[in-house]
Amino acid sequence: MREIVLATRPQGEPKESDFELREVDAREPGDGEVLVRNVFVSVDPYMRGRMTGIRTYVDGFDVGAAIVGGAVGRVVASRHEGLSEGDWVSSMLGWRDGGIVEGSTLRKLDPRVAPPSTALGALGMPGFTAWIGLEDVGQVKDGETIYVSGAAGAVGSAAVQIAKRKGLRVIGSAGSEEKVEWLRSLGTEAFNYRETPAREALADGIDVYFDNVGGDQLEAALTALRPFGRVIACGSISRYNDEKPQPGPRNMAFIVTKRLRVQGFIVTDHTDRFGDFVRQVGPWVADGTFEARETVIEGLENVPAAFAGLFHGENTGKMLVRVGPDG
Amino acid sequence: MREIVLATRPQGEPKESDFELREVDAREPGDGEVLVRNVFVSVDPYMRGRMTGIRTYVDGFDVGAAIVGGAVGRVVASRHEGLSEGDWVSSMLGWRDGGIVEGSTLRKLDPRVAPPSTALGALGMPGFTAWIGLEDVGQVKDGETIYVSGAAGAVGSAAVQIAKRKGLRVIGSAGSEEKVEWLRSLGTEAFNYRETPAREALADGIDVYFDNVGGDQLEAALTALRPFGRVIACGSISRYNDEKPQPGPRNMAFIVTKRLRVQGFIVTDHTDRFGDFVRQVGPWVADGTFEARETVIEGLENVPAAFAGLFHGENTGKMLVRVGPDG
Repeated sequence: MREIVLATRPQGEPKESDFELREVDAREPGDGEVLVRNVFVSVDPYMRGRMTGIRTYVDGFDVGAAIVGGAVGRVVASRHEGLSEGDWVSSMLGWRDGGIVEGSTLRKLDPRVAPPSTALGALGMPGFTAWIGLEDVGQVKDGETIYVSGAAGAVGSAAVQIAKRKGLRVIGSAGSEEKVEWLRSLGTEAFNYRETPAREALADGIDVYFDNVGGDQLEAALTALRPFGRVIACGSISRYNDEKPQPGPRNMAFIVTKRLRVQGFIVTDHTDRFGDFVRQVGPWVADGTFEARETVIEGLENVPAAFAGLFHGENTGKMLVRVGPDG
Repeated sequence: MREIVLATRPQGEPKESDFELREVDAREPGDGEVLVRNVFVSVDPYMRGRMTGIRTYVDGFDVGAAIVGGAVGRVVASRHEGLSEGDWVSSMLGWRDGGIVEGSTLRKLDPRVAPPSTALGALGMPGFTAWIGLEDVGQVKDGETIYVSGAAGAVGSAAVQIAKRKGLRVIGSAGSEEKVEWLRSLGTEAFNYRETPAREALADGIDVYFDNVGGDQLEAALTALRPFGRVIACGSISRYNDEKPQPGPRNMAFIVTKRLRVQGFIVTDHTDRFGDFVRQVGPWVADGTFEARETVIEGLENVPAAFAGLFHGENTGKMLVRVGPDG
């Protein structure tokens, strides 16, 4: 089996040379363990922070260690009750062909309900992040106007679709005409932030801002927010590769004058709500009315490139790497 | 009677030449009206924003119009039921010797309960701002550590004393050794921000930041805040004289990674809580255990200088101008 290890801490944009592919010996699963073969591995923007080695809400990655993260695969051999050969499971195996894991840490997936890969996107961490952000953090209400930056990404595209269903007027931004077209097909107003300044696009005002991007988009949103508006502070992908901290918004004063609430959150604090999320969003994904779009790259050796691509907007919807066949 | 009008919109720091003293004719009060002679007029940092002429949560001041704001004085003649000659009242008469007002807009003060001037400070808008910020916005709890910037100001000195009584560990900053000594005498840990970087002084971490200052203090507080910390965003006096918007904190990313809540507020949204505030803080001021310190400048003609002095920290506690005798 092969795995990808962090060879060195990235400086600025992650490069392929920051990672190394390493062969590891397979072994048999012990008591309670399961041998899993990965089919899809996930690349996510939050992983960039872990590569700095600084502990935040989660430990940093160690140099020389395999990159752990979301993965979906199939059971090859199981010594854990309730899991047997051929089962689809989601794991935190990360950037590997597969491996041995404690069976209790696996979530069994039913491929008849939804494609297993959606456990890494619309029905996994990104979709859950969008749902928690809207539902519990932003407490969005029917009739409000929301702006979602990074709207064609994994979290963003879930956020716009959930917000739409909750009766909001939804404005989304993305970095290409193709993505903008897709967002429009989802019923949202959309603009290309490379062509239209957010300040112009949001001139009518907004009630809520779902921030995936930070930087200029956050500044524009603070200007556009109406009194008592909220910022659902989810991420700031425009900043993750900064080597030196960059200045924040020049219009922080609006937080006071407009009585804004800026609330950060991390989805792993809300795992007790995962069941509620799946009960609500699962049926929409299952019946196809919720579009769980994916950008799929082939081959474990291409995981670093796929990861780097996140910072250039190379994904529409969830970015995944297929590392093995379905069957 | 005399009044001070806005002669021109200040550029940067307010100067005396931005204001003009004007004579106005007195008239007799009509039905329901009261003639009030001001004893104290209030200068407050928030007035700087109104001088820009931009409407935020409140209208801008017009050039050529008298500056309205908090004042405390005595009734000279009344045609409003419930008020009679000699009564102490608080009004929004602002920077004048006095004037005619609708009796229904006046609050009658009992000088036996607390000195009438406290209606502009500890028992008025600044004290109420501190209380609402801690109680409703920050929802501070016994045992937490709070950092208050501008701690020797009208709002700050109320905030540190209220927080102390609520069982918090209180750290305050101010700009002189004298103020720091005073803050220590109030039972708070205190430092001079001109000598000690806030980042150092807050190295042990804080749970809540009561922001009166913005800028560098906000940045230092975002670094010092523990996970799930809150910012009570009250004001940013370090920024009010900026002609060009200045960059915000370089560490906004902490809002997400530490799941911080930054909540702006304006005290006038909370007037339904004023009674609760007075019932709680009033007795402390009355029995002298709450120190309602004031810096009192003499003479209506010196109101602009007193106002400008706020931005140089010339006040300890509430800055007031005495424009007439008590009796």
